[in-house]
Amino acid sequence: MLRFNIQQPDAKITKALQHKIENLTKPKGSLGRLEELALQIGLIQQTLTPTLSHPHNVIYCSDHGIADEGISQSPKEVTRQVIHNFLNGGAGVCFLARQHNFKLKIIDAGVDFDFPSIPQLIHKKIRKGTRNFLHEPAMTYEEMERSIEWGAEIVTDCYKGGCNVISFGEMGIGNTAASSMWMTCLTGIPLIDCVGAGSGLNTEGIKHKYEVLKAALDNYSGDGSTYDIMRYFGGYEMVMAVGGMLKAAELKMIILIDGFIMTNCALAASLLYPSILLYCIFGHCGDENGHKALLNKLKVNPLLHLNLRLGEGSGSICAYPIIDSAVRMINEMHTFTQANVTKYF
Amino acid sequence: MLRFNIQQPDAKITKALQHKIENLTKPKGSLGRLEELALQIGLIQQTLTPTLSHPHNVIYCSDHGIADEGISQSPKEVTRQVIHNFLNGGAGVCFLARQHNFKLKIIDAGVDFDFPSIPQLIHKKIRKGTRNFLHEPAMTYEEMERSIEWGAEIVTDCYKGGCNVISFGEMGIGNTAASSMWMTCLTGIPLIDCVGAGSGLNTEGIKHKYEVLKAALDNYSGDGSTYDIMRYFGGYEMVMAVGGMLKAAELKMIILIDGFIMTNCALAASLLYPSILLYCIFGHCGDENGHKALLNKLKVNPLLHLNLRLGEGSGSICAYPIIDSAVRMINEMHTFTQANVTKYF
Repeated sequence: MLRFNIQQPDAKITKALQHKIENLTKPKGSLGRLEELALQIGLIQQTLTPTLSHPHNVIYCSDHGIADEGISQSPKEVTRQVIHNFLNGGAGVCFLARQHNFKLKIIDAGVDFDFPSIPQLIHKKIRKGTRNFLHEPAMTYEEMERSIEWGAEIVTDCYKGGCNVISFGEMGIGNTAASSMWMTCLTGIPLIDCVGAGSGLNTEGIKHKYEVLKAALDNYSGDGSTYDIMRYFGGYEMVMAVGGMLKAAELKMIILIDGFIMTNCALAASLLYPSILLYCIFGHCGDENGHKALLNKLKVNPLLHLNLRLGEGSGSICAYPIIDSAVRMINEMHTFTQANVTKYF
Repeated sequence: MLRFNIQQPDAKITKALQHKIENLTKPKGSLGRLEELALQIGLIQQTLTPTLSHPHNVIYCSDHGIADEGISQSPKEVTRQVIHNFLNGGAGVCFLARQHNFKLKIIDAGVDFDFPSIPQLIHKKIRKGTRNFLHEPAMTYEEMERSIEWGAEIVTDCYKGGCNVISFGEMGIGNTAASSMWMTCLTGIPLIDCVGAGSGLNTEGIKHKYEVLKAALDNYSGDGSTYDIMRYFGGYEMVMAVGGMLKAAELKMIILIDGFIMTNCALAASLLYPSILLYCIFGHCGDENGHKALLNKLKVNPLLHLNLRLGEGSGSICAYPIIDSAVRMINEMHTFTQANVTKYF
């Protein structure tokens, strides 16, 4: 299995960062989360003058064998249709990427469709969809390893292009189901509290989804290790995201985490390498059932609560301007001395 | 008293807006608050293709007689010092305004200081600070009327410059105290639940602030009407903001509401003209004690929760990119038909 060298940021700089932040012309602590973010980013970058450069949103896309069980509101062909919509600039994530100057990287991790050669689509297809985990492991160990490796490769490419802040998103009909399996197996939270509406199931649809997943859970007889859960229930896009996140942390990049599915990927990554969480900023708490409990389990507090449940990286890109604000704050605000303002605390 | 002609947006366009939003390529409702905002803004502007142009952040600044009672952590001279910091670009709101392309308008509504003539500072000084409302009304009726009028004038100027989205902020040592008085008198929420730390009082400081305000409340013998409460306890910057908000609604502008003080101004404005709330977007729920209860009283749900308590319009400007996203969503996202995506709900 590919190994990653993920280091904890050196805490020596903490005091100097705090000193700088406290001497900016504002009541102490009055910029709240912006101050926390400035500290985290200063630590990651080991500097009092952090920067954000070449933000990317990487969208890994794949199909899921479990979709054959009717666990999603959306038919499977939506995966490839939405990929075309990404490439044409019409999808939800596209206007957000344009707004906040994110470069989109769209990766075919395992879509059940033969795309013609499209330059903007990165071909990393492991297989045309995972296997149906109701009956067998979704992927082989070898496929999982390749997914981690290829996911990491994409991030290395972004890094080489000057990127130091990266958001991860996904597209894959069936992937909230796969994520619910990761969540229940990796946290111990009961399955019922991990299953939600996905792209729009009604109560009956959610009940059916739960029953299918419960049966899959009962059928599972693996060793329960993080890697085994990842490969048994995972999607190629999800495992690639885990590989991408781990590589990003190794490269000391700022990692933006999107919704329910990407939070599950961060969970899996953090079980393999706990220090990764020091590099992560959680963009938003979405509407998918289970997301809030999962964020609590990780003891993280996302920046936004906008009732989003689109995926694609939409929630993390929406949070980006706040991160940008934090960096501008520490670089641009004047200190009490500089501004001749009485320090009133 | 200056009258405003504030109309409810014509609801006839609602159905067409909803139809457009529901046909964008995303699971129904999956862009959450962005969809709500797009609907609100489409209604305000009576169009399916809304725009945001020339955003402004208006900061009314003034001093308060009640500051003589030691109810703030900050000495009074901080009001004028921070104004200099606004003008020099070093204050908290300045980097946010640069980031999101807001033009700042800084208004001397009643600062207790003789500024030299500074072109960037708009001179609308009513008086050098209000009177101390522990002993007498903070302002006369005539001063209140002039404040409303001048506050509105500033907004008309912004509008004439092509602005259709306006944020309001304030600077004034003592104005959380004045706001607590408005809140308790105008909502009936007990004073104790309306009083907070302001720029950083400790527990003892808050207790003293409460006792001063309680005494002021006991001394008050007015008629309890909105106008009377506004003039008895208000600051010139607060009353100007009320005037500014009312004018902005009359001009069908999008109004961004900042923290505790500006929410109190929106409260007062809404008691005079309830329809104003249809034009308001609440930027954030701050950390000042009472803000959450006040937002609940108004039945509004702010966009951000970032533990800010700076004022100056910082919270509403931080929320601006989300509003921008909503407008981009309705204008730029492709529909299911356009994108050849199966409509899956």
